[in-house]
Amino acid sequence: MDLTRAAAAALDAADPLAGFRARFTGTDDDGPGRLLYLDGNSLGRLPRDTPAALHRVVEEEWAEGLVGSWAHWIGDATRIGDALAAGVVGAAPGEVLVGDSTSVNLYKLLVAGVRAQPGRDVIVASADDFPTDRYIVAGVAEDRGMTVREIPADVNEGLDPAVLAAALDERVAVVVLSHVAYRSGHLADMAALTRLAHDAGALVLWDLSHSVGSVAIDLGAAGADLAVGCTYKYLNGGPGAPAFLYVRRDLQQRLRSPIQGWFGQRDQFAMGPHYEPADGIERFGVGTPPVLAMAAVEVGVGLIAEAGIDRLAAKGRALSDLAVSLVDAWLAPHGAVLASPRDTARRGAHVTVAHPQAWQVTQALVDRGVVPDYRTPDRVRLGPAPLYTRFVDVWDAMERFREVLESRSFEAYPAERSRVT
Amino acid sequence: MDLTRAAAAALDAADPLAGFRARFTGTDDDGPGRLLYLDGNSLGRLPRDTPAALHRVVEEEWAEGLVGSWAHWIGDATRIGDALAAGVVGAAPGEVLVGDSTSVNLYKLLVAGVRAQPGRDVIVASADDFPTDRYIVAGVAEDRGMTVREIPADVNEGLDPAVLAAALDERVAVVVLSHVAYRSGHLADMAALTRLAHDAGALVLWDLSHSVGSVAIDLGAAGADLAVGCTYKYLNGGPGAPAFLYVRRDLQQRLRSPIQGWFGQRDQFAMGPHYEPADGIERFGVGTPPVLAMAAVEVGVGLIAEAGIDRLAAKGRALSDLAVSLVDAWLAPHGAVLASPRDTARRGAHVTVAHPQAWQVTQALVDRGVVPDYRTPDRVRLGPAPLYTRFVDVWDAMERFREVLESRSFEAYPAERSRVT
Repeated sequence: MDLTRAAAAALDAADPLAGFRARFTGTDDDGPGRLLYLDGNSLGRLPRDTPAALHRVVEEEWAEGLVGSWAHWIGDATRIGDALAAGVVGAAPGEVLVGDSTSVNLYKLLVAGVRAQPGRDVIVASADDFPTDRYIVAGVAEDRGMTVREIPADVNEGLDPAVLAAALDERVAVVVLSHVAYRSGHLADMAALTRLAHDAGALVLWDLSHSVGSVAIDLGAAGADLAVGCTYKYLNGGPGAPAFLYVRRDLQQRLRSPIQGWFGQRDQFAMGPHYEPADGIERFGVGTPPVLAMAAVEVGVGLIAEAGIDRLAAKGRALSDLAVSLVDAWLAPHGAVLASPRDTARRGAHVTVAHPQAWQVTQALVDRGVVPDYRTPDRVRLGPAPLYTRFVDVWDAMERFREVLESRSFEAYPAERSRVT
Repeated sequence: MDLTRAAAAALDAADPLAGFRARFTGTDDDGPGRLLYLDGNSLGRLPRDTPAALHRVVEEEWAEGLVGSWAHWIGDATRIGDALAAGVVGAAPGEVLVGDSTSVNLYKLLVAGVRAQPGRDVIVASADDFPTDRYIVAGVAEDRGMTVREIPADVNEGLDPAVLAAALDERVAVVVLSHVAYRSGHLADMAALTRLAHDAGALVLWDLSHSVGSVAIDLGAAGADLAVGCTYKYLNGGPGAPAFLYVRRDLQQRLRSPIQGWFGQRDQFAMGPHYEPADGIERFGVGTPPVLAMAAVEVGVGLIAEAGIDRLAAKGRALSDLAVSLVDAWLAPHGAVLASPRDTARRGAHVTVAHPQAWQVTQALVDRGVVPDYRTPDRVRLGPAPLYTRFVDVWDAMERFREVLESRSFEAYPAERSRVT
């Protein structure tokens, strides 16, 4: 790889997705002092179309249509779900539902899954899964007298399929796995790991939060059973935007949500005396979804689908390849080492760097106009978003990163972590 | 009561809350053909301050502050909760949390409650509770091998305390009750019913959805244990706005949410290996709250607190008294009868009318510019909102209601219910 800025600029000039950058706010300033936002995998940028969508839902549908607008809003969860299914995660219509948080969705599907596996009393999860996943797994297991079989995963290289295989037996009800690991960025082989679990009679629940919108996902082809994911990262749905869940069509009738809310009820507005779950994916709904937030999700999902997930995934690989090369060339000599898989095929769109003073380095980078994400205990996570991050943005950010390390300016920052990171 | 329009106008002239009407959209038209919105107990109107609050959170905090705005957003759930506690529901700081849907919150607190009552295997709930409450109770009971003891409640007059008393014994873990019944508008005596349940060693979980913001609530004085409620009705937080939950301070350490999400974790961003619930109300948090929707809730809660719940409750009683008098005087002769408690002290802010062709009548009213709410099987619900509904609005709406019944124009409408009502 040619590690010059001119080479990076040439990649941008050839980028078929280049036009999407202008469809996000905060992308006008093109000067050398501009903000280099590499945290789109924590909170995606604001699409320029989102304020108009919110204006419509607030000042027309809510203010003028009032309660009558429910005739439209009632379809939000499945309409946006179908758009995600078709354009982003490789699912069929009626297999994806938008609403609740990732954590609540994980809980619903995990409990539904273990209840559909009578006689099996083990949940397998990875020690490297995102904290909320591990906490929810632990809570479900404790509550239901089940055992968590936590499998080790290399914090840099991710889960070894052989380790999963060794943990599988006839006691395993559900396996919870991250598609892209939140720290290392390791990309799991969804089809292969799902096959392993199926061979042992287990269901797999995939957390797509750190992959959706930045890597190719084909839930159908992988034979995936269950999945949840986040819409406020690469899908640019806004802070805390409602999450989604996926249940493969032929599993839907066998599974029941433990939270039997009225949005999962067949003929909801008949308000009948007994709960009877809806036939399809709607049975995993619970309460009234936050309509304002849903409107922002719809814009974000639409942009990703329009760009095309294969093009996004290809650009994500190229951006992270450039970042990896620059970590090796510029940062490694100063004590910051790659903490992600080096093999492009085993990596999602983000790249993580380990440094003993990562928290101080993160603060110094933010003050230099580079926004990465700190992850305990010693990681700096760089998340270029294929939809709006350019190759020159990665190049310039890594140059500032090198300057921070070279100058050791980070040593002036407090070593103690603040509460929100 | 003087049932003239002039008398209604005089009540408006003397109304200390009259100035709040102008702070909502859709209140400019004062002509005889204006929309008479009596469904604020289903979806409250848009406060004029809400678009600016959304603009700030979207185009400043999200677009410009990006992920750094979490330093502010992280406090949303407890800050808005504290505002609700102090200004609306009579709770102490640190007892109310905003987030998730009412249904999810009910599930969390119900399961937390039954787990804190080992050896008790019965949940008591009312047959007249809102459907999602009954469905969730049924799901929790079935999942945990418990029994639901469903107590009858008169569909017009509400729950008789003696009926609850007879259902209580040492097997009862939790009693789920509605503060204001969603159909009849019956207002329960929170303190008295809570005492009854406590005498039997049971916890009470109150659903405040149809009372909060329109009747006086003092959770502290009533000795309430647990509560949940909706923010999109009288609190005007917007369609599907995040709900709230309440846990009395001295109970918090004893209770654990079954959904152990990272927003309930002590020192959340340390992302430690094991779940350890936060000390206070935060332990009932789960996933990332929808920040855009939270901003709208904050505006709505602020308006209610500013108006003062005692003034709102007094006006709510006066509005519904007027409606009751007009039902008797104008509608009863045409076959529509009061289906709410006649005693003001036993009624919330809404008034329900029973008519054999209620669905057709509802459609005719909507076409005449009156928006009520239909409730199965034969009810028309009238929900004046004390913050923006005037006495002349109730008067004019009831006049149109009388005309619809007198002319029998409703007979031209389809008898079959459409899906969304």
